[in-house]
Amino acid sequence: MSDHSDAAVVPVQAYEPPYYAAVFTTVRTQEQDGYAETNARMEELVKDIPGYLGMDHAQTPGGIGITVSYFRDADALTRWRDDLEHRAAQKRGRAEWYQSYTLHVAKVERSSGFTRAEVAQGPTEG
Amino acid sequence: MSDHSDAAVVPVQAYEPPYYAAVFTTVRTQEQDGYAETNARMEELVKDIPGYLGMDHAQTPGGIGITVSYFRDADALTRWRDDLEHRAAQKRGRAEWYQSYTLHVAKVERSSGFTRAEVAQGPTEG
Repeated sequence: MSDHSDAAVVPVQAYEPPYYAAVFTTVRTQEQDGYAETNARMEELVKDIPGYLGMDHAQTPGGIGITVSYFRDADALTRWRDDLEHRAAQKRGRAEWYQSYTLHVAKVERSSGFTRAEVAQGPTEG
Repeated sequence: MSDHSDAAVVPVQAYEPPYYAAVFTTVRTQEQDGYAETNARMEELVKDIPGYLGMDHAQTPGGIGITVSYFRDADALTRWRDDLEHRAAQKRGRAEWYQSYTLHVAKVERSSGFTRAEVAQGPTEG
């Protein structure tokens, strides 16, 4: 079940705080017509938001999905929240695709990262 | 690949802000001996931290894993960070289980939730 674009499997890096993270946790319904297309469109659209930093997504098959979007500041996040096409997608999500969801909007105060030394040159995972 | 306890599939709810979210995104190595056991132990241990609110976890098979832990305040998060058994697990994670990870510690300023009206009585997903 790969709804999301197969970008390289690398988590979004630790940016210099402060920045914002929008944590969106979902349980989906059986009704997924149009979800993949809309989701791909949203992933493209958000890149046009000035201050957008990146997105992490994980989906347990048959379980919870978590999408975390990162933004430089609150203004960038507000702009994304108010995007008309995004709002239409959210509305359809509530009508069809989501059993339940929670959104936590948070200001990152501290961040750190780790990468194994032996693969510091780049990802080798096939 | 179900490393995590099979709790009911319900995302952690929207608490009254402010509270803290620790977003931990990982890519794992091929070396996963002991991971499941340690992870289950950590999921139990964190429940003893006063101010712990809950945890969401999603794992894309062969891809990224995201764990978001929620805490009432920064003190609770610090206590979890400094737990000796947790620190030992983190150290082993860097030595064996994680290809790379990022940690974003953030203060939640706004939150909201949605549950489909027709299943408001409780989850029916099998």
